[in-house]
Amino acid sequence: MEAMKSWLDIDRDSHFSIHNIPFGIVSTKAKSQPHPATAIGGYALDLQIFSQNNGFASLSIIQPHQAVFSQPTLNAFAALGRPMHRVVREYLQSVLLANGPFPQILRDNQILRNAALIPLKDCQTHLPLQIGDYTDFYAGLHHAYNVGVLFRGPQNALQPNYKHLPVGYHGRASSVVVSGTPIRRPNGQILSNPAAEPKQPVMSPSRKMDIELELGCFVCKPSALGEPVSIDDAPQHLFGVVLMNDWSARDIQAWEYVPLGPFNSKNFGTSISPWIVLMDALEPYAAVGIHNDVKLMPYLDEGDRKSHFAIDLSVTLTTATGNTSTISRTSAKNLLFSFPQMLAHHTIGGCPFNVGDLMGSGTISGETKAEKGCLLEQTENGKVEIELEGGERRKFLEDGDVVSITGCCGKQGALVGFGECTGRLEPAVQLKGSSPV
Amino acid sequence: MEAMKSWLDIDRDSHFSIHNIPFGIVSTKAKSQPHPATAIGGYALDLQIFSQNNGFASLSIIQPHQAVFSQPTLNAFAALGRPMHRVVREYLQSVLLANGPFPQILRDNQILRNAALIPLKDCQTHLPLQIGDYTDFYAGLHHAYNVGVLFRGPQNALQPNYKHLPVGYHGRASSVVVSGTPIRRPNGQILSNPAAEPKQPVMSPSRKMDIELELGCFVCKPSALGEPVSIDDAPQHLFGVVLMNDWSARDIQAWEYVPLGPFNSKNFGTSISPWIVLMDALEPYAAVGIHNDVKLMPYLDEGDRKSHFAIDLSVTLTTATGNTSTISRTSAKNLLFSFPQMLAHHTIGGCPFNVGDLMGSGTISGETKAEKGCLLEQTENGKVEIELEGGERRKFLEDGDVVSITGCCGKQGALVGFGECTGRLEPAVQLKGSSPV
Ligand SMILES: [Ca+2]
Ligand SMILES: [Ca+2]
Ligand SMILES: [Mg+2]
Ligand SMILES: [Mg+2]
Ligand code: NI
Repeated sequence: MEAMKSWLDIDRDSHFSIHNIPFGIVSTKAKSQPHPATAIGGYALDLQIFSQNNGFASLSIIQPHQAVFSQPTLNAFAALGRPMHRVVREYLQSVLLANGPFPQILRDNQILRNAALIPLKDCQTHLPLQIGDYTDFYAGLHHAYNVGVLFRGPQNALQPNYKHLPVGYHGRASSVVVSGTPIRRPNGQILSNPAAEPKQPVMSPSRKMDIELELGCFVCKPSALGEPVSIDDAPQHLFGVVLMNDWSARDIQAWEYVPLGPFNSKNFGTSISPWIVLMDALEPYAAVGIHNDVKLMPYLDEGDRKSHFAIDLSVTLTTATGNTSTISRTSAKNLLFSFPQMLAHHTIGGCPFNVGDLMGSGTISGETKAEKGCLLEQTENGKVEIELEGGERRKFLEDGDVVSITGCCGKQGALVGFGECTGRLEPAVQLKGSSPV
Repeated sequence: MEAMKSWLDIDRDSHFSIHNIPFGIVSTKAKSQPHPATAIGGYALDLQIFSQNNGFASLSIIQPHQAVFSQPTLNAFAALGRPMHRVVREYLQSVLLANGPFPQILRDNQILRNAALIPLKDCQTHLPLQIGDYTDFYAGLHHAYNVGVLFRGPQNALQPNYKHLPVGYHGRASSVVVSGTPIRRPNGQILSNPAAEPKQPVMSPSRKMDIELELGCFVCKPSALGEPVSIDDAPQHLFGVVLMNDWSARDIQAWEYVPLGPFNSKNFGTSISPWIVLMDALEPYAAVGIHNDVKLMPYLDEGDRKSHFAIDLSVTLTTATGNTSTISRTSAKNLLFSFPQMLAHHTIGGCPFNVGDLMGSGTISGETKAEKGCLLEQTENGKVEIELEGGERRKFLEDGDVVSITGCCGKQGALVGFGECTGRLEPAVQLKGSSPV
């Protein structure tokens, strides 16, 4: 693929090259109501202003649908379907292209450029879609294996179902927040002494605050109660991908999760990056995931389809003293099941989907220590400290820690990136009757 | 409490006496757009027509808010808060009361009576609220104990956390449907032979289709990310109660649920009754639940508050041949944790709630065999058949079976009931590659 060039001055390290064209929801000083935008270089191109000022004059097919660019979420745009996402993205690329076919639309229209191109630093980003339901999967095989070893030893690390189906659980849609939203350390029941009998929980701020490096994928096509989505149709149901941090309280989780799964250990906040990278933008970076050595049932069988993505991921931790350390680097290829497989499995029994529903990949870890996507794995559940820049150390997160996930595909000058998914851990609410940390 | 009497002719067995005044969403031949109504005797009182024709003329406090009665869901009405629900319910009672203060509003207004009182059989009921998030708890102690005995024996029947906190899991909001919606038997991965090693699942329609007798409770007050709802404030966050059937596929559940909980075994459909009985209507039937013999933490401690309800519940099964059998009768008092406790626990770590969020109680079973709220318990996971009227037998549900839950408080002539929560089990979708039942 040849690199395209824009007439707009775009930094070679920008995640938002003309090859990307991600979609998000912003508000600005001029327009305080959240509305759609795309990110290009250091700017948001305000799509409400753009569409209201004849920006789409040379794309007749979108004209009956331009109200989608005045909505406070991307649900209506997503619902137009993948073929429409493709033409809109390609049209915006052609408008931004150096020597492109439509210089009059924006390049030579100083008034519209001044109105519609807003420095990203002057934009507030918002949750890009209204999320009806959120499901978190567990498709990071190395993560599942590492965690299994910690709790059950290497012989029984993976449960018998693990390779046959994408294991997942329903998450809390209301707790998904956009990057930048502060996350409060949750209070909850924990066992101070897990070995004591009878088991006696105490109320405490979590002492084992963790992150989970994940991808999220939004659904753009509804499916009805009782109607499975086939593995062949599934890709047309996917809108785009974001970075996700599934903040986790390991001590709350350990006590609460038997037998119905994680609950308050997860539902205090899950962060996603603000810019949705469309499936079409990721297509050039399609890759195979982890080889599955069991024979999958037909409803999960993708054949040779490359349905994972070669996204380079990294996680940094910035402490309250200002030191920033990269604590993980890995690739999004480290998944056993793809988003189309997750959707096919999720709907095989007839579970319905709405536009805007979100699926999380599960924690993504590579095989080596430097590639582990959560602290639980890195510190062996708090047994081993990790060393940070400036001599600080961590078993789990401390108040004031800022965790940022970044992800990117492609080469300098033509990057298709996600920007970042960041959040600062705030101290717990003071409760009556809670134990000190 | 003295029985009130209406000028409207109401059957003494009606669940919708003047003591009830439940809220729901209906559509009719005259008004095909779903809109709010209350049920009174054999009628729906159409609240959109009522409000648009000065029905609320003698209740000035509601007048700025009458648009809530033209919405397609009850979310806006719910959001007005419990004090407003109370005055609206009491006003409607006074309008319907024999020798009440406002005979001119409806009793003596023949035109409005003809327009606004619609026989229930001519109304289509709809999902009463838009549900943002749905959580299912597991507070039926006898159920949890019975199921625990089946899978782990009596010594370890209850998990160590069970009495310390209301165990729950996030459910699938999109799969909650109103009573009457057909439920399709799900296909899914099951183990034909759970004892075989290595474990080899097959794709099949579920062979262990079950019901779960539950109550659902809707939330009417939002709470923000990071902000716990205290046990004292929790009752003001509750809108009202419905009957709920948490249809469950036990074989899919057994294979999928380790370690993250139930997923496709539940998300193919959960039925709720259409009429929301307000918390105020249930107040006269307040009762204590099951005594909890562990000392609860302060955030769950309700003191002597009676926060359960003496609702008589029953479940009938009607087979395709038309025979109807009552398969369970029990009381809603058989819960270890109340809805206020569930909400206080759910939010202790900061999980946010929106108006319209739904909490399920968990399966309600009494101590005796006749009081068991699911077939898993009744048939000991398919080991023992139950006998139905007409000589039929069941281990689990068969296609064409109709399951109906009813629930009621109070005495004949003054009943506060829920009507019914019903659904017919339809055959599974035919898939390529699935095994025959
Ligand atoms: Ca996760
Ligand atoms: Ca249940
Ligand atoms: Mg989370
Ligand atoms: Mg269900
Ligand atoms: Ni007011």
